[in-house]
Amino acid sequence: MGSDVSISKKISESAIRRLSLYLRNLENLEKGGRETVSSEEMSGQSGTTAAQVRKDLSLFGSFGKRGLGYPVSELAERIRGILGLDRRWRLALIGVGRIGSALVEYGGFGRRGYDIVAIFDSDESKVGGTRGGLTVRHVDDFEVVAEEENVQIVILSIPLEAVPSVMDRVRGAGVRGILSFAPTKLKVPDGVVVKDVNMVMELEALSFALSQREGEA
Amino acid sequence: MGSDVSISKKISESAIRRLSLYLRNLENLEKGGRETVSSEEMSGQSGTTAAQVRKDLSLFGSFGKRGLGYPVSELAERIRGILGLDRRWRLALIGVGRIGSALVEYGGFGRRGYDIVAIFDSDESKVGGTRGGLTVRHVDDFEVVAEEENVQIVILSIPLEAVPSVMDRVRGAGVRGILSFAPTKLKVPDGVVVKDVNMVMELEALSFALSQREGEA
Repeated sequence: MGSDVSISKKISESAIRRLSLYLRNLENLEKGGRETVSSEEMSGQSGTTAAQVRKDLSLFGSFGKRGLGYPVSELAERIRGILGLDRRWRLALIGVGRIGSALVEYGGFGRRGYDIVAIFDSDESKVGGTRGGLTVRHVDDFEVVAEEENVQIVILSIPLEAVPSVMDRVRGAGVRGILSFAPTKLKVPDGVVVKDVNMVMELEALSFALSQREGEA
Repeated sequence: MGSDVSISKKISESAIRRLSLYLRNLENLEKGGRETVSSEEMSGQSGTTAAQVRKDLSLFGSFGKRGLGYPVSELAERIRGILGLDRRWRLALIGVGRIGSALVEYGGFGRRGYDIVAIFDSDESKVGGTRGGLTVRHVDDFEVVAEEENVQIVILSIPLEAVPSVMDRVRGAGVRGILSFAPTKLKVPDGVVVKDVNMVMELEALSFALSQREGEA
């Protein structure tokens, strides 16, 4: 493990994205029974160059033999290890509105090792109801439940005005990873990792770019 | 308009994100009846510095008077114009699985001027059903409907294996903007703008970072 860690430390954010894309590509090939793949072929679905693929993969030691390509299953396994997908993660979700509820019921997280084990809302009319087989707990119970359930990552699908009070609870529980759908930059202690998903902001970046084009036309 | 376009051309991707955050901050203040705001206060919710706020906003001309702060409503209006939010956009959604359905039913897009006007799936058992008041059309009809409905942006919430055939239709329809939930780098013609939203890949980046921490501990 020691050498893995020092190797993966050098990996940039954008390289991590590419690893995620390579992995999907490899898993697709695995399903089709393929045993080896060239860097040229892998570059296609990842929107990068064969040289970049070779460079990225060289970080994990000597894989693939010149002219023979990379061994599909071994490489997939190796990338899963790097991305922390060779184990299961325990997640809590706060905010069971439309998007939050869809996330709980969506099977895609569990398939990759991310198990949502507890769900929360501050709306009394939702507390006690169920989503995807889980009972909605009151967010006031977050710290207690997060400890009981050994929660490692929190998904926040809450509106802007709920952020300050919810973040007090999340910080209080000592959670180290947050996937946030909230339209704000979260304030977190050192050592807490936040990834943002903001669909409306992505649309704003799109409409900004499209407005520009019209201006040019 | 001409000067707006040339000004906004210089704006980086990360500056666009900050504008989106500033706008949310300003709209929150507007609701509370506030008339002016300082760059210091604006920097808080956007996770940046007051100097960065002043620099970003100086791109749009001389706003705010020294010591008085920025006029909340005027500045919000200005940013809405830059982001293309002073008009309405016509969107189609392809793929009405759990996430796609939640997006159609979610009110947050419409509130910001993004109207989903048509929805599609390739699953015959879904075609003819309704989601959020819209009838699910077959994706084979995409090109015809997109033209009739004057679709400008497509939301793709489809699995990896559906990407090649769906993208043939999207390219055929001449759509210029795509918000993609598909776990791959889309191949698009020059001039088409793609923004990716991939929640599982964000989780992978999180679990990568958390695995690293454990390695260090």
